[in-house]
Amino acid sequence: MKKIKLKDIAEMAKVSETAVSLVLNHKPTRISEEKQQEIRNIAKKYNYRPSHVARALSMQKTKTIGMIIPDIENPFFSSFSKRLSKLLEAEGYMLIISNSDDKMTSDVMLLEQHINREVDALILCVSNESSSDSNFYSRHIQSLALPYVLVDRNFEGVSKNQIYFDNEVGGYLATKHLLDLGCKRIACITGGMNSNVGKMRYLGYKRAMAEYRFVLDEDIVFEGNFRYSSAVEPSKTIVSDESVDGVFASNDLMAYAIVNELIKYRQKKDRDLKIVGYDNLEYASMFGVPFASIEQDAAQLAVSACEMILKKIRENHDEDNIVLIPKLIIK
Amino acid sequence: MKKIKLKDIAEMAKVSETAVSLVLNHKPTRISEEKQQEIRNIAKKYNYRPSHVARALSMQKTKTIGMIIPDIENPFFSSFSKRLSKLLEAEGYMLIISNSDDKMTSDVMLLEQHINREVDALILCVSNESSSDSNFYSRHIQSLALPYVLVDRNFEGVSKNQIYFDNEVGGYLATKHLLDLGCKRIACITGGMNSNVGKMRYLGYKRAMAEYRFVLDEDIVFEGNFRYSSAVEPSKTIVSDESVDGVFASNDLMAYAIVNELIKYRQKKDRDLKIVGYDNLEYASMFGVPFASIEQDAAQLAVSACEMILKKIRENHDEDNIVLIPKLIIK
Repeated sequence: MKKIKLKDIAEMAKVSETAVSLVLNHKPTRISEEKQQEIRNIAKKYNYRPSHVARALSMQKTKTIGMIIPDIENPFFSSFSKRLSKLLEAEGYMLIISNSDDKMTSDVMLLEQHINREVDALILCVSNESSSDSNFYSRHIQSLALPYVLVDRNFEGVSKNQIYFDNEVGGYLATKHLLDLGCKRIACITGGMNSNVGKMRYLGYKRAMAEYRFVLDEDIVFEGNFRYSSAVEPSKTIVSDESVDGVFASNDLMAYAIVNELIKYRQKKDRDLKIVGYDNLEYASMFGVPFASIEQDAAQLAVSACEMILKKIRENHDEDNIVLIPKLIIK
Repeated sequence: MKKIKLKDIAEMAKVSETAVSLVLNHKPTRISEEKQQEIRNIAKKYNYRPSHVARALSMQKTKTIGMIIPDIENPFFSSFSKRLSKLLEAEGYMLIISNSDDKMTSDVMLLEQHINREVDALILCVSNESSSDSNFYSRHIQSLALPYVLVDRNFEGVSKNQIYFDNEVGGYLATKHLLDLGCKRIACITGGMNSNVGKMRYLGYKRAMAEYRFVLDEDIVFEGNFRYSSAVEPSKTIVSDESVDGVFASNDLMAYAIVNELIKYRQKKDRDLKIVGYDNLEYASMFGVPFASIEQDAAQLAVSACEMILKKIRENHDEDNIVLIPKLIIK
């Protein structure tokens, strides 16, 4: 099926291409109403579709916003993407999502491709690799000519165009909850010190412990990597050490490993252990073993990101960072 | 930051725009090597970026594949998207993903926008609404001029350009497993008869029951909607009816509701109940209560979708449907 072009319609209607373009784009023209109707009829008959690409060139707007996320399989990012997509759709923008697989090389390549495809703006959730390599990548992004907002993963020491949750406060709130419950010896499974998120949550744990004048015991701080498997061994140690009465897991997947060990242990012996996780996933409740968790509201993040990017498209100023505060959810 | 244009380079190098274009696009030209170098130097110095949109117009290729999925939050679709994205990236294509929120109106709108943006091809996972409304939407899609593949959600009675898992076989395998384990009275929680997937899985259950000469007992067939909450009440009935010794849940989320009831019941009383779910999610194992489940391999689906769409881009023929067979995973 060959596509009909503006030129073909012009030939059939015996008018200029400009005339056809004016009529089909509802622009003022001196062409007779009769001729206009003829042009529209031909366009309709042959299912003429104006080239959006050609139009984008002349209008300099594509009404498309590109987004790069590190992991489309991570429930937090998929939930955020879905909500943002809906909000932008209501504003007449299409959100096109691409997945970097948490790799800096993909971040660079996808960024390039989105720009080449002339999106109106960019929403960037950079890879952990990119966010820690603040010299190279942050400078690259900050030199972008088009409006962008950095979401969730932020560069340290950059005060503009970023929206993210305060992970230090999250770690603090989680640990404070355990302390307020009367826990005397609180373990921690971190997300690893090479990720900004992991580090900040751990610093929150440290702050709460210090505030309550507890000495930090490195023996019950374990380094995980946000995956379930990384928490399996630490969980065994934590659960079998009965002096430990509370544990902060830096995300819910790692908290699940603790719950699993705790269920097994309890089949033999009573064991009281308070758990706080992070992400507020639903699954633990589904199996009847709910625990408190820190929630980062993806809907709130989507609303802020939508507002900031639309403002930037309209005004193209730098915007001050927005730091969102996570919440403790007790179940 | 003003963008430098082809015209600006032409002026600076005192050559025609065509000359600049030929040189920068590595096309044969009679321009002296010296002049060519000068042009390249200017382009480099001013960070010249050829307009991809302009180039797309002349080359008629954007090296971009659009995808529409019904629910980016559904682990099956996000896993499939991630894998497909990686495979296409290796072939030089960028996958841009958009979310229809399982609505036919969004399917139509996003389809239009992807086409207007001149993607090279489309991967479509249509909404349930669109897949059941086979008259309107399937005809609309089948009249598309550009290469497309329908993935996962298929139109009945269409024999071309579709890749999907056989849900009837999945329901059959699940139920057969329970029968082979010696279950005598097998309940079913369906996904609802208004979804093609729900209907086919139920028909598989029926086929296995008939094959083993069991009379279908409508009293222990419950209609759910693939959500956890829809299975909570049916689970109570199933678990408390001790004559029921097996249950096929049409997805794992609904199976979780059964597990939850079973754990509670077992605190008071012994209860043997075999469960088979669908989707093979990991969470039940994380909590130490694994059950058999039917797996649809998202990686396999991604490989097939990648192969078919590349073939269609190159040859643009209709391709015969590919029906993938799900597997029973025993844990």
